[in-house]
Amino acid sequence: MSLVVVGSVAYDSVETPLGQRDDVLGGSGTFFSLAAAAFTRPSLVAVVGEDFRPEDEALLAEKNIDLAGLTRVPGKTFRWGGRYHSDMNGRDTLFTELNVFEKFAPKLTPEQRRAGFLFLGNIQPTLQASVLEQVDSPRFVAMDTMNLWISTARDELVSVVRRVDAVFINDEEAHQLTGKRTMVLAAREIQAMGPDLVVIKRGEHGALVFNGDDVFYAPAFPLEKVVDPTGAGDTFAGAFVGYLAASADLSTANVRRAAIIGALMASFCVEGYSVERLRHVDAAAIRDRYRAFLELTSFDAPAL
Amino acid sequence: MSLVVVGSVAYDSVETPLGQRDDVLGGSGTFFSLAAAAFTRPSLVAVVGEDFRPEDEALLAEKNIDLAGLTRVPGKTFRWGGRYHSDMNGRDTLFTELNVFEKFAPKLTPEQRRAGFLFLGNIQPTLQASVLEQVDSPRFVAMDTMNLWISTARDELVSVVRRVDAVFINDEEAHQLTGKRTMVLAAREIQAMGPDLVVIKRGEHGALVFNGDDVFYAPAFPLEKVVDPTGAGDTFAGAFVGYLAASADLSTANVRRAAIIGALMASFCVEGYSVERLRHVDAAAIRDRYRAFLELTSFDAPAL
Repeated sequence: MSLVVVGSVAYDSVETPLGQRDDVLGGSGTFFSLAAAAFTRPSLVAVVGEDFRPEDEALLAEKNIDLAGLTRVPGKTFRWGGRYHSDMNGRDTLFTELNVFEKFAPKLTPEQRRAGFLFLGNIQPTLQASVLEQVDSPRFVAMDTMNLWISTARDELVSVVRRVDAVFINDEEAHQLTGKRTMVLAAREIQAMGPDLVVIKRGEHGALVFNGDDVFYAPAFPLEKVVDPTGAGDTFAGAFVGYLAASADLSTANVRRAAIIGALMASFCVEGYSVERLRHVDAAAIRDRYRAFLELTSFDAPAL
Repeated sequence: MSLVVVGSVAYDSVETPLGQRDDVLGGSGTFFSLAAAAFTRPSLVAVVGEDFRPEDEALLAEKNIDLAGLTRVPGKTFRWGGRYHSDMNGRDTLFTELNVFEKFAPKLTPEQRRAGFLFLGNIQPTLQASVLEQVDSPRFVAMDTMNLWISTARDELVSVVRRVDAVFINDEEAHQLTGKRTMVLAAREIQAMGPDLVVIKRGEHGALVFNGDDVFYAPAFPLEKVVDPTGAGDTFAGAFVGYLAASADLSTANVRRAAIIGALMASFCVEGYSVERLRHVDAAAIRDRYRAFLELTSFDAPAL
């Protein structure tokens, strides 16, 4: 089924213990749609400035992403700068320049309004709500959020959470949103707000998927070298929801498969800066990594 | 095959966000041998003081632990106090009173010298070495260590690492010991020192098992409520090595099974203070948790 994603397209400046890149392609909408495009043709709703490089637009178009909803307006593209800690897990935001994103008012085309699957990236909750107003009756709506909105727009955020089918959130944010100490309790609290599906992302520690009564744990693929974690969570969600949209199957078994696919794609994302590695992932690479994942996690029944 | 463990028996004072317990049974040797005793009859080599409570000794004896190597000497039992952070992962040591442990010089009985399996708990490296001098030709020797010895007795520690078959170590310690940024690189560095088997413990994030060229990931069992993480790593190692000793099978497949068993037993440990939960774990409880673990991690092959 058709998939629409509303999110950011950005230029990121990233410092890691291994190196630095300035003004490289990033943003939740970018990573999400690139990952989803491995399985379906996502439609990206976002805004960029006059400085958005033609080669970056060409890359997204080449990768089977519908850009009818990518608006170019006067001004500069959204910019984010961050520095990762030595363990590559924590990070500090060095700057956020909203630029053209400040006046972003997502407007869906008639075709996008009829989308079967919708993903609301971690934009301001009022914008997420405005997108929800525009869609007809999607089969599946998922959202992401971030610490900023939990602390500055909690009420608006919770009212969006109440209206979606799925929430993607990282463990710290889940704790911040619910005050619950364990991920199981935090997920149950978010489910009680409405969504059947709560996916708690834990970075290099994988993801916990609470789907109604079903609980599934998808471990992350352990890598020798992590180059840049930026976008891994959006990549995870993009592959997860892209796989669901492509298969149009929301069964418990398929949601588990989708989580594994999300973890595999996220493992590619962190192997390069920006979209450097992700852009070169093809079906063969995904199949190879899936086989490697099975080798890593399979075991025979113990004698008990 | 017979299993000997050399470690500490202690009284712990623990503060968690949920509560506090003082002078409760703890120590690496205690948790390790209680967990191993679910699969084999381990022989515990440790020292306690005159204040060691008869009911604690009776508990260990009842649970099928051979206490011929548990020495009682004048003075007080080793005491450790710690406070867990709000997320239950990090902790601060509030005090360490070595007491009778200060003069601990483990001496193995003739039977213990012929042990097939030996585990060196996280005691001082020179003591670990003195135990290695006493054993005949064990089939499998594993060791644990801690940050204190990495910073204060690195050379002695590395010389013990060179002589064992397996190292159990947590992720921070592996980073501290090797300076390597990812667990894969840290494990390869430790393997290069000698041990074929390197098990990197990651607390609630499970364990990575590097066994020769084989890499296996055993996720931890996600729990609704973690009461007290003290002893989880020793419990993991105790069940892991206890299962290996009971089966006398060091094949790749069996090492993977042992890691899963270790993760299951550790999940019981953290459900209570001290050994409160662990002491009541029987074969039926282990089987039930194994089934729950399968439900949590199983998935069908995706269409790729």
